[in-house]
Amino acid sequence: MPTEPLSAFADLDYDRAVRRGFPEAVFCEGKATEQVRTIAADIRTRRARTLFTRVLPEQVEPLLAELPGARHVTDARIIAWPGEPPEPTGGLVVVLAAGTSDRPVAREAAMTAEYLGRACELVVDVGVAGLHRMLAHLKLLRRARAIVVVAGMDGALPGVVAGLVSAPVVAVPTSVGYGAAFGGLAPLLTMLNACAPGVAVVNIDNGYGGGHMAAQIAAPNL
Amino acid sequence: MPTEPLSAFADLDYDRAVRRGFPEAVFCEGKATEQVRTIAADIRTRRARTLFTRVLPEQVEPLLAELPGARHVTDARIIAWPGEPPEPTGGLVVVLAAGTSDRPVAREAAMTAEYLGRACELVVDVGVAGLHRMLAHLKLLRRARAIVVVAGMDGALPGVVAGLVSAPVVAVPTSVGYGAAFGGLAPLLTMLNACAPGVAVVNIDNGYGGGHMAAQIAAPNL
Amino acid sequence: MPTEPLSAFADLDYDRAVRRGFPEAVFCEGKATEQVRTIAADIRTRRARTLFTRVLPEQVEPLLAELPGARHVTDARIIAWPGEPPEPTGGLVVVLAAGTSDRPVAREAAMTAEYLGRACELVVDVGVAGLHRMLAHLKLLRRARAIVVVAGMDGALPGVVAGLVSAPVVAVPTSVGYGAAFGGLAPLLTMLNACAPGVAVVNIDNGYGGGHMAAQIAAPNL
Amino acid sequence: MPTEPLSAFADLDYDRAVRRGFPEAVFCEGKATEQVRTIAADIRTRRARTLFTRVLPEQVEPLLAELPGARHVTDARIIAWPGEPPEPTGGLVVVLAAGTSDRPVAREAAMTAEYLGRACELVVDVGVAGLHRMLAHLKLLRRARAIVVVAGMDGALPGVVAGLVSAPVVAVPTSVGYGAAFGGLAPLLTMLNACAPGVAVVNIDNGYGGGHMAAQIAAPNL
Amino acid sequence: MPTEPLSAFADLDYDRAVRRGFPEAVFCEGKATEQVRTIAADIRTRRARTLFTRVLPEQVEPLLAELPGARHVTDARIIAWPGEPPEPTGGLVVVLAAGTSDRPVAREAAMTAEYLGRACELVVDVGVAGLHRMLAHLKLLRRARAIVVVAGMDGALPGVVAGLVSAPVVAVPTSVGYGAAFGGLAPLLTMLNACAPGVAVVNIDNGYGGGHMAAQIAAPNL
Amino acid sequence: MPTEPLSAFADLDYDRAVRRGFPEAVFCEGKATEQVRTIAADIRTRRARTLFTRVLPEQVEPLLAELPGARHVTDARIIAWPGEPPEPTGGLVVVLAAGTSDRPVAREAAMTAEYLGRACELVVDVGVAGLHRMLAHLKLLRRARAIVVVAGMDGALPGVVAGLVSAPVVAVPTSVGYGAAFGGLAPLLTMLNACAPGVAVVNIDNGYGGGHMAAQIAAPNL
Amino acid sequence: MPTEPLSAFADLDYDRAVRRGFPEAVFCEGKATEQVRTIAADIRTRRARTLFTRVLPEQVEPLLAELPGARHVTDARIIAWPGEPPEPTGGLVVVLAAGTSDRPVAREAAMTAEYLGRACELVVDVGVAGLHRMLAHLKLLRRARAIVVVAGMDGALPGVVAGLVSAPVVAVPTSVGYGAAFGGLAPLLTMLNACAPGVAVVNIDNGYGGGHMAAQIAAPNL
Amino acid sequence: MPTEPLSAFADLDYDRAVRRGFPEAVFCEGKATEQVRTIAADIRTRRARTLFTRVLPEQVEPLLAELPGARHVTDARIIAWPGEPPEPTGGLVVVLAAGTSDRPVAREAAMTAEYLGRACELVVDVGVAGLHRMLAHLKLLRRARAIVVVAGMDGALPGVVAGLVSAPVVAVPTSVGYGAAFGGLAPLLTMLNACAPGVAVVNIDNGYGGGHMAAQIAAPNL
Repeated sequence: MPTEPLSAFADLDYDRAVRRGFPEAVFCEGKATEQVRTIAADIRTRRARTLFTRVLPEQVEPLLAELPGARHVTDARIIAWPGEPPEPTGGLVVVLAAGTSDRPVAREAAMTAEYLGRACELVVDVGVAGLHRMLAHLKLLRRARAIVVVAGMDGALPGVVAGLVSAPVVAVPTSVGYGAAFGGLAPLLTMLNACAPGVAVVNIDNGYGGGHMAAQIAAPNL
Repeated sequence: MPTEPLSAFADLDYDRAVRRGFPEAVFCEGKATEQVRTIAADIRTRRARTLFTRVLPEQVEPLLAELPGARHVTDARIIAWPGEPPEPTGGLVVVLAAGTSDRPVAREAAMTAEYLGRACELVVDVGVAGLHRMLAHLKLLRRARAIVVVAGMDGALPGVVAGLVSAPVVAVPTSVGYGAAFGGLAPLLTMLNACAPGVAVVNIDNGYGGGHMAAQIAAPNL
Repeated sequence: MPTEPLSAFADLDYDRAVRRGFPEAVFCEGKATEQVRTIAADIRTRRARTLFTRVLPEQVEPLLAELPGARHVTDARIIAWPGEPPEPTGGLVVVLAAGTSDRPVAREAAMTAEYLGRACELVVDVGVAGLHRMLAHLKLLRRARAIVVVAGMDGALPGVVAGLVSAPVVAVPTSVGYGAAFGGLAPLLTMLNACAPGVAVVNIDNGYGGGHMAAQIAAPNL
Repeated sequence: MPTEPLSAFADLDYDRAVRRGFPEAVFCEGKATEQVRTIAADIRTRRARTLFTRVLPEQVEPLLAELPGARHVTDARIIAWPGEPPEPTGGLVVVLAAGTSDRPVAREAAMTAEYLGRACELVVDVGVAGLHRMLAHLKLLRRARAIVVVAGMDGALPGVVAGLVSAPVVAVPTSVGYGAAFGGLAPLLTMLNACAPGVAVVNIDNGYGGGHMAAQIAAPNL
Repeated sequence: MPTEPLSAFADLDYDRAVRRGFPEAVFCEGKATEQVRTIAADIRTRRARTLFTRVLPEQVEPLLAELPGARHVTDARIIAWPGEPPEPTGGLVVVLAAGTSDRPVAREAAMTAEYLGRACELVVDVGVAGLHRMLAHLKLLRRARAIVVVAGMDGALPGVVAGLVSAPVVAVPTSVGYGAAFGGLAPLLTMLNACAPGVAVVNIDNGYGGGHMAAQIAAPNL
Repeated sequence: MPTEPLSAFADLDYDRAVRRGFPEAVFCEGKATEQVRTIAADIRTRRARTLFTRVLPEQVEPLLAELPGARHVTDARIIAWPGEPPEPTGGLVVVLAAGTSDRPVAREAAMTAEYLGRACELVVDVGVAGLHRMLAHLKLLRRARAIVVVAGMDGALPGVVAGLVSAPVVAVPTSVGYGAAFGGLAPLLTMLNACAPGVAVVNIDNGYGGGHMAAQIAAPNL
Repeated sequence: MPTEPLSAFADLDYDRAVRRGFPEAVFCEGKATEQVRTIAADIRTRRARTLFTRVLPEQVEPLLAELPGARHVTDARIIAWPGEPPEPTGGLVVVLAAGTSDRPVAREAAMTAEYLGRACELVVDVGVAGLHRMLAHLKLLRRARAIVVVAGMDGALPGVVAGLVSAPVVAVPTSVGYGAAFGGLAPLLTMLNACAPGVAVVNIDNGYGGGHMAAQIAAPNL
Repeated sequence: MPTEPLSAFADLDYDRAVRRGFPEAVFCEGKATEQVRTIAADIRTRRARTLFTRVLPEQVEPLLAELPGARHVTDARIIAWPGEPPEPTGGLVVVLAAGTSDRPVAREAAMTAEYLGRACELVVDVGVAGLHRMLAHLKLLRRARAIVVVAGMDGALPGVVAGLVSAPVVAVPTSVGYGAAFGGLAPLLTMLNACAPGVAVVNIDNGYGGGHMAAQIAAPNL
């Protein structure tokens, strides 16, 4: 297949960075490798800070070749360009992962917040089955301006955390779990029904969305 | 409509009490008042200890008239006959209700356990949005041989409790909650996906089933 | 039925106000009128700023009798006590309602934000079927520190708004709509799948939750 | 396996072209390669203009061998025979794809409309997260007699477009998106609930159906 | 409650009629009677042709009082103002109702098409359980430029009709049926999966949407 | 409202009785009382044996007035005309109801089979919680040419029965049960997944459909 | 892994053939190849007529080796032993497949009916999009004592057939179709909601169940 | 990738064994092989009795290498360390598997109960399609202190068993079955709706959870 021009398949919204104040992201999962590479070339030309999310294994090498100095984090499936995050401003973002299996999504959230300009701390394996593990981090949680809580299975952690802090909690359900988790539906519903106010929810496995929302919440006042 | 004989609409399983060791229950919601009364008359004749569950308002007077000495608990929608529970044997059953709105189902569970012969304690309004409320009862919870946890909305309480005790937890989801609780589906899924082992689930709003299961778990060894 | 003591059915979390920095709310829908009144009496004694949400029609008079000076907003189904909101601090909260039918939920959100201490503007009937209506308010939207967007039917408004501003958007789906809206499921899913990042979602018809989240986001830095 | 005669597995509806005025299509996904080839041979004999849709990779070569001059478009998974579309009649069909990942389905729609005899324009990557991209094509949209809008994720684009034009919009949801898109269920529901009238919906990923409907709408009056 | 000004709850899109070429409609179901009346008064002032759909019984009298000469069709729940439809232009719209119970939705569709300026024929009780009933109207169906098919239960009629004609079919599922029709979900899915191309679907019970789409399809070319 | 002629809302399929060999039925639930009465008048004129199913309370008197000699069975919600069933031919139909609450649907099935010309036996309250109750009827079950099993809640009875007999089992799920029965969805799925072959399922609460299918199965060979 | 004895994993119900009058079937999909072979050896020893259904590719050779003279039909995924069906008795079974893609399930049904002792005719590709194709077989359909209709996508064929014949129709939904067929859910619901009485439904893709039910219906009277 | 320290991805809850009285388990499915091995090394150091559940094929060798003397049961996907279970105490646990295909989950349950210190008996292939098979084990069932019933497809077995015994039944639905079993949803709902009280349910395919609950129920009184 001959290489198609960018305009045949994408209309990049470079203006969004200006309009919204945050860099662009390219969702790679549904795109052909050749398309992703063409997009990367255009981005390099324009020197636009960009996150590539949900990068497929076969897209990694072409992207790194096209974007010198980019940073690739395998389990988070993110490539960031340029590789260094900006200097942090605004408040602290804390990201919690309920279980080890939730860590990839949590790292996607943490990296997103970091590359959008926030300081960020990541804490893993603090699910409600052993409350003392989360309670050990309460001091850190109370320093946060925004908290992202990533959890699969019963998705109970965000509601428990929200009951203990004053910062808003962005809940990210994951598709981790046995059969009746139904691909993340169970934790999604749990989080939407959290008893404690101060929890809002993004899509299943959407670490990028969770991190972006937290970065906006913790942004410095203009 | 002329009164129908019992055999036209019901075949009471008096043998179940013998076969299983627990008294019978009559689920009233889908039955006509006249049918419920005919069943009550038969039960009185046979002197069979019975619980009438999900009693509809219009069925209360006819049942009480037919069963002298019966006990009616309005919010639990139960009529117990005879009115006094048996002497408790076996271990302690503790019933927790996450919120005030879950209390009717919790009382249905507690009464069921009590009339099946267990000692029972009921604690209300100890949801995870304020963890300290449940933790204040930890000593009681650790004395239980079986725990029933009744919760709507996010249904997170059973999993949190199960992580702290050695007794098995019977979880009862309720239909209490905002829209995406979907009539109890959300807490049902949460409970089925509880991270801590030691949680098993009965039907939505099924306080009777939860109390029955707990009574069996805490039954004396034969 | 004799009046029960408060401890029989509720364990009010007055400490939450201290712990989290926001006043308590009492969800009235699943509670008996007598219970709600007993709770109100306790609250008055403790002089604790409180919102009563989802107040049922028959609960209004008893609550107003128990709480002198309280403010009742009928379509929002809220009673606030004391009646005056606190002096606003922090950033501006803007609440949008996509249609006229979404206004009650939007007002619940706006009142919540206001009584939690934020300045708040409410704009109604700006759905995506006529984009120019929302675009007319773009200047106001860009002044907001947090935006609540309330929408039923297709739930498309939050994603469109998020693409135009830098503030985080809290999306509240409503149960307004024809059959395949399935009681709010359709807008809920739309909002969770919003193409633009910066949208997080609360429960269907949960104006209180949306307003609370926004108030936390727009809170003054400590 | 010996080759089966056509009549053992298919009863081609050649009369449909006469009855309905549009050429036949063969849905290949659930058919064995040998079956598809036997059908192609019969079609060549009868010289019947035909679209093969959802062609599986292993079916491409046998079909092209059987149908000299056929045109194969890989990402649209279509083989058209004969390779040249008919001369366009009737009004203009415009096909929009919300994102790059929706392009294959959009091309299936566009090719279908073209081979059914309509002039067709395809515009890609104009999702609602950056409204200005779609608005840039408003003039083209207002020239259309029928518009097909292909979108995954939140599926909000068709409703926004319909609010701006007088042509009917055929909405095609796609299975592109994160977890809670539930394989296209989310955009399907969004489109069914579009606030603006003038949107009707076909099956998920059904570019063929969308293009066919548009070709019928834009057909010349008889 | 004092009467609120229109701007407090609605921002009528009078421009839509200009922008799209079709009159406005007011969806009454979720609005207070007082709001509906205020909207009607504004409409009368502007002399804007309008359909009021899903009119609640208690809204009928106030609307008729506000809009002299309006036409009310009870089972279709529509009030049209002015009462006379415009002179028909463009092609013929045929509306089919599968069963007697589907007639109210079918009449909503037919009235909508008529008041948007199309000639319209309505045929009732021609479901697929007795094919000959529909086949008796084949000649009429083949004269149509657009066909609306309204059906509950199995929703099979649109696909059968589409296989016999060249006009596009707009399918309207209804909530008529036994339990597993799930409020219209069953016919909705049937219609989305119609084997014959040329079927597109609107929301459950959305006669207005079906009639509007058909009126657009059958509109005269500009 | 003036009385409408029959042709305005119904096209009765009298030919069906000839074509299929079974009398017609009129589903009353979604029809206006006036419509039902007009249909009854037409039927009386044509002397066509008919079942009126799902008769609403307000329709009973008008129907009985229109159809002298008709038989009304309240809980089955059926009116049969003429009142006497035909002489039974073919094999025996046995109808089982798992619980007392399932009896109305079971009687609808039994009456349908009887009025379509089969001998029919009805047995009530033989659910699987007490297997001996069903086993006591095994001899009767083995005499049947077709068996209808009506069950709500877990819907387990049809599969258990099918494992014990050679006659085909028509399973009718009912909407009886606690929350997670989801209006009959649970027994419906159970029956579709019955381990024993020889079970086929009709719609939820569709006693008429179950009885009709059984009457066809047990019909005399022609 | 050493070969396990049969009793470690299966308890074959040879008595079922006696009890029910139909041979046993072994569902192979969830069983290990070694288990299936051990079962086959036991069956050969007992000389019990058996159908192996849903045979996995890797199980074919071992089964054929163990069961000399067995017949394997690849697309139906069935192995029958002994290879010859019994002499047909009772009435005729007709199996219809709506589309070519439904043929494997239809053949599973036809073979099952044949090996259970019925004469059987199979007709393929007669979906409702071209009614004349099914109508061409009406004479055959009217000779049947039982009809199996296999259909995916909209699943409309069984209801249309049932409206034209007096024999009962067993409907088998298939998982064939585009996205919103949801793996067979769409045709399943369509069939359960068929307007014409005389349709009962078995599980998705369950050709075996459909053929078994039909064989029972068409069995000779005892 | 360099080996990460344990603290980067897990916070093992060794205290749980003390707090709850049961050994820890490690859910392996969502973890990287390297992570699982690091966890195993830590466990060996602390000499903590542990079950590794849902072990992926590629994780087996590394785990066995790290844990000398461990026992691996392939179909149950469990590795137990140390390899010998503790001396049994408390009451008997009986595990039933409805079909051969349910055996892997049943063995996971049985092994879990055994390694938590209970005596355990496993009985396979006793589904309700042939009731006599289960009834043959009634004596064993009546000796049990807790019963685990594992079933896919219709999931009817737990309710039937519960009606015959006094011990509580823990029901484990499996994802075994045809299409409308929907990955275990059907048996899950059946079990939640069991007519007989004394059934509580764990997650789909969650043999570990079922065995753990049973072990707690049958634990010796302290």
